[in-house]
Amino acid sequence: MHIIYRLILVFALVTRQVAQAQNGIVVFQSDFGLKDGAVSSMKGVALGVSPTLKLFDLTHEIPAYNIWEAAYRLYQTAIYYPKGTVFVSVCDPGVGTERRSVVLLTKSGHYIVTPDNGTLTLIAEQLGIREIRQINEAINRRKNSNESYTFHGRDVYAYTAARLASHTITFAQVGAKLPNEVVRLPYQKAEYKDGLVKGTIPILDIQYGNVWSNIPKAMIEQLGVKPGEMLRIQIFQDGKSVYDKSARWVNTFGEAPVGDDVAYINSLMDFSIAVNQGNFSEKYKVSSGSAWTIIVSK
Amino acid sequence: MHIIYRLILVFALVTRQVAQAQNGIVVFQSDFGLKDGAVSSMKGVALGVSPTLKLFDLTHEIPAYNIWEAAYRLYQTAIYYPKGTVFVSVCDPGVGTERRSVVLLTKSGHYIVTPDNGTLTLIAEQLGIREIRQINEAINRRKNSNESYTFHGRDVYAYTAARLASHTITFAQVGAKLPNEVVRLPYQKAEYKDGLVKGTIPILDIQYGNVWSNIPKAMIEQLGVKPGEMLRIQIFQDGKSVYDKSARWVNTFGEAPVGDDVAYINSLMDFSIAVNQGNFSEKYKVSSGSAWTIIVSK
Amino acid sequence: MHIIYRLILVFALVTRQVAQAQNGIVVFQSDFGLKDGAVSSMKGVALGVSPTLKLFDLTHEIPAYNIWEAAYRLYQTAIYYPKGTVFVSVCDPGVGTERRSVVLLTKSGHYIVTPDNGTLTLIAEQLGIREIRQINEAINRRKNSNESYTFHGRDVYAYTAARLASHTITFAQVGAKLPNEVVRLPYQKAEYKDGLVKGTIPILDIQYGNVWSNIPKAMIEQLGVKPGEMLRIQIFQDGKSVYDKSARWVNTFGEAPVGDDVAYINSLMDFSIAVNQGNFSEKYKVSSGSAWTIIVSK
Repeated sequence: MHIIYRLILVFALVTRQVAQAQNGIVVFQSDFGLKDGAVSSMKGVALGVSPTLKLFDLTHEIPAYNIWEAAYRLYQTAIYYPKGTVFVSVCDPGVGTERRSVVLLTKSGHYIVTPDNGTLTLIAEQLGIREIRQINEAINRRKNSNESYTFHGRDVYAYTAARLASHTITFAQVGAKLPNEVVRLPYQKAEYKDGLVKGTIPILDIQYGNVWSNIPKAMIEQLGVKPGEMLRIQIFQDGKSVYDKSARWVNTFGEAPVGDDVAYINSLMDFSIAVNQGNFSEKYKVSSGSAWTIIVSK
Repeated sequence: MHIIYRLILVFALVTRQVAQAQNGIVVFQSDFGLKDGAVSSMKGVALGVSPTLKLFDLTHEIPAYNIWEAAYRLYQTAIYYPKGTVFVSVCDPGVGTERRSVVLLTKSGHYIVTPDNGTLTLIAEQLGIREIRQINEAINRRKNSNESYTFHGRDVYAYTAARLASHTITFAQVGAKLPNEVVRLPYQKAEYKDGLVKGTIPILDIQYGNVWSNIPKAMIEQLGVKPGEMLRIQIFQDGKSVYDKSARWVNTFGEAPVGDDVAYINSLMDFSIAVNQGNFSEKYKVSSGSAWTIIVSK
Repeated sequence: MHIIYRLILVFALVTRQVAQAQNGIVVFQSDFGLKDGAVSSMKGVALGVSPTLKLFDLTHEIPAYNIWEAAYRLYQTAIYYPKGTVFVSVCDPGVGTERRSVVLLTKSGHYIVTPDNGTLTLIAEQLGIREIRQINEAINRRKNSNESYTFHGRDVYAYTAARLASHTITFAQVGAKLPNEVVRLPYQKAEYKDGLVKGTIPILDIQYGNVWSNIPKAMIEQLGVKPGEMLRIQIFQDGKSVYDKSARWVNTFGEAPVGDDVAYINSLMDFSIAVNQGNFSEKYKVSSGSAWTIIVSK
């Protein structure tokens, strides 16, 4: 009987191992933009490690040094990739300083290779921390690259991600295990209290000018309203009122006239506001970040 | 003898089938831009269906809600991809409303997965309609995505395209067959009459500011002019004259001085106008769309 | 013994051959931008040659007709890709004129498919010329594309690169061998003289507004300064002083206060200047190109 238990245990461990095995997919994110050779250099280095890797992009249009937005884009996107995908996120104002270079393995089986400077704030909450390792640059650094202090994205992060994704190294070979904690950026979480729902504007849906909140659909439902009904929405910047109007809560934009303000649940299942076929953010001069507060009521 | 006929018939059918078989290539187009995680999420979903798919982009810089331009980019590009390529086009102002989600199989063997809102106007004319099927969302929709009304690009179109391209489903399994018709945007076609050639400006070659028409080379030749000769070109916006000058019809820009207005045949074999090494569109404030008319004469 | 020598010779030749064999990777660069279908058409043509090719981008945001910048991006990036990678660079103001279409094989084993209009200036110096061949368009041109004079990027360069990368043709089958010379753009090289180091500003690190020079680290060290010490930096445009200040030479931006001007060695190991977490180029109105001179002294 002991043997059978042991076999079951081994089977369970192997299954768990497979569930988090790297799948050869690497997804790059940065604040480098696409106008020069920086992103392409990272991919060249990865292909030099293994030409069979499958390389994709999250975005390279993170505003320069905007760690919060890098964190948000990972939160918005990583979950849609299969387990075992390796993400590289390089938004690194402190490049060359003592911030730690790490690889996070989430409970969902995704890997994120990044400086631990706040970039992992949201994804650590969303997908959970299974294990974090610090990149050992004595091993996991492109050969003959020690002279360059400024392009760790290429010489350390892309290189390590490619080695991990191609099974050139195991996760343990990334470097020493760290405590299950990441550097976290402060931000206000969504809350329901006394018939008011309060939250922040973590990001704009910039292509359309829609305003996204961090308030989940279920919290709006606590207000006792249904799709089709009106909601009062107040928006403040540093406590000063910027917007205070009523908008219809719709399932689809087609339910409201073109040009109307509408409230809806976005693709991440969070409460959001738009001008139907217009640009809410420009019209009302609303932006995103920790200075912004949004209050929703009946 | 009957057996031989039958074998020939089977062979012909199989050949036809192979000629339109999906080749594992998926090409994405949208008006999402590249600044957030939307495009990357679609690719993640596709890789979750099959990590061996080869994913490419047409463009994601379609101006927001500009269905005409989405239609034009498909027309400009799809033909250069091998048969069996699956295109996903998401420019969808009516997301969540009752527009139909379809997959068009062209006579040339290309698949286009899109809301049927006019996006197929030009490609249906250009490559022909072999068959259209309506996406059955009861089957062809990402699991647990029913709560989100707003991101059909990710939850329906990318998902269905990936399943089709990876042979997870057959074309028939997309959903019910529809009549061989698509929603068409109205636009003025090119015509020759009484020594004048008339057409529209479907699009600008925006990177260089060149103005493209929908007038084919052969129609210009009906005017009895040859490369090297001068052409009178008139451009109107809503009937009001914006440009009325003569320009040399050149084979290559090198035939004219830098700064000269030149007429040429663009890479789609249509009549076009440029300032040699300059920006015609900016210089003369000429744009594109159904409001614009162009008249060419000797 | 003769036989053994011969075997060694054959082995050496075969090894050399393998070292420069194409690896199935094609990297595209252009001044087309990403807003229309041009880049995607090139990839479609390449996939039509062989659907197993691995296609990547360097950048498509080269400013229109800016051959110098195209040359610089190749210099900045190609070296990070594995040997046997085929690059396509299309920045071609003279399309359709008599400039030669060539493929350069560098001594490092990289291929570059391009019009020979100056694009190869820097990479020929950096990686060396092993062999150059002129593209024979009678063979290496997409079928039925002779009518289009204006899209050689798609019809000649992408097509030839794909055939070469997929081993459809050998390098010899590209076309006739040319002398080992390329068209070179004039530019001032870095020099040390009498305690002054002089150079040019080949490019800006535009995403961050940093100013890069063509002065290598070793030449700065000839001044007898060490990281942490101050350097006098003078910048001239057409001989007129634009900037004359002292800046600390740092290993990492973290060594200087936010907002300070700092000098550093960039990721290409060249001398560079930045405002720490700011935009040097905008602040001091410094740009790049042959009109710009930079002088560094103690």
